[in-house]
Amino acid sequence: MTRGRFIAFEGGEGMGKSTQAQLLAEALAARGITVVLTREPGGTPGAEAIRELLLHPPGDGWTREAEALLFAAARSDHVARRILPAIEVGQWVVCDRFLDSSRAYQGIAGALGDDRVLALHEVGSHGIKPDLTLVFDAPAASVSARLAARDGDETDAIGGRTAEYHASVNAAFLDFARQEPERFRVIDGTGSIEQVHERVMSAIDGYFESGQ
Amino acid sequence: MTRGRFIAFEGGEGMGKSTQAQLLAEALAARGITVVLTREPGGTPGAEAIRELLLHPPGDGWTREAEALLFAAARSDHVARRILPAIEVGQWVVCDRFLDSSRAYQGIAGALGDDRVLALHEVGSHGIKPDLTLVFDAPAASVSARLAARDGDETDAIGGRTAEYHASVNAAFLDFARQEPERFRVIDGTGSIEQVHERVMSAIDGYFESGQ
Repeated sequence: MTRGRFIAFEGGEGMGKSTQAQLLAEALAARGITVVLTREPGGTPGAEAIRELLLHPPGDGWTREAEALLFAAARSDHVARRILPAIEVGQWVVCDRFLDSSRAYQGIAGALGDDRVLALHEVGSHGIKPDLTLVFDAPAASVSARLAARDGDETDAIGGRTAEYHASVNAAFLDFARQEPERFRVIDGTGSIEQVHERVMSAIDGYFESGQ
Repeated sequence: MTRGRFIAFEGGEGMGKSTQAQLLAEALAARGITVVLTREPGGTPGAEAIRELLLHPPGDGWTREAEALLFAAARSDHVARRILPAIEVGQWVVCDRFLDSSRAYQGIAGALGDDRVLALHEVGSHGIKPDLTLVFDAPAASVSARLAARDGDETDAIGGRTAEYHASVNAAFLDFARQEPERFRVIDGTGSIEQVHERVMSAIDGYFESGQ
């Protein structure tokens, strides 16, 4: 049986990642591919329980170290119980956020250090990386408008951080893409949902048709 | 201000650790020392929430990797928010289980590897170790009798593992004590509660009067 593919959607808040992940999953399904559409933190009962702790911390909020450990724990469960089993039977996994979010948010913007985040991922998930990672990029002005249109669900312990923190997150994602050009494609997140979706499909087809 | 002391109680299930930690805390308080009696996993609101996830996992139980990450996350919160602040103001911390339980249960008995558990502790808690660690040791037969007398609260996801697992845990604690003799004292856990308490007090006084 042919191994499936693992595609991660990454980027800062309000980039339209979740909408685009959904549209990609539908487009792949229309081609007859069995797709698992999932997200982090979450994706399994254990990881969803950890997600609740992350977004709504008991007590005084998590230290950056505890936060990074909780993300790695949720990812470990998600990889072992959902992502790898799907890929092994030939399904494609489309995941809204993965390792590079921990690297950007906790490692770089939170100043824990990229090496520490990667060390936790090595212990938790044997260092597994997606086949292809799409990073969504858009100017801060268009992102602010999108975020303002959201309802209160997103004002959680992470989405609610400062503008400087989010700018640092976005810069980190672009850095990662420059460091590992074979694993990343940067997607221009401006324009209509349909326009961005066309860019996603073009990136997917270009990547997998080239045999990567 | 003089820095306080950090004393951990370690050992397998049914060794009487919790009872003895309580008695030590009372004995130190009677000497005029301000004592924080705490336990792991737990000890802070965040760590107690993680404890719930550990003892009663949602879904199919945690993988050994996720379990080790959750213990390290709980410990990180506990160290940063409770243990270090107490020691810094001169209080003594008596903790029922700490790092060496993760090393024995997940690292050795669970075969994750001692190096991985120590790596998680380095990220989560900057590698902090207790000043003194008391390891309780007793023959399996006397432990079985104690465990049989407990009520149903203890049949959780960890206490309920096989006899081989628990034998491996007990052997691991004794190994750690041999590897770091300056940090450990092995306490004979047989006999009455009062007899064991006398051994604990003698170990404490011997250790701290010798200036360690």
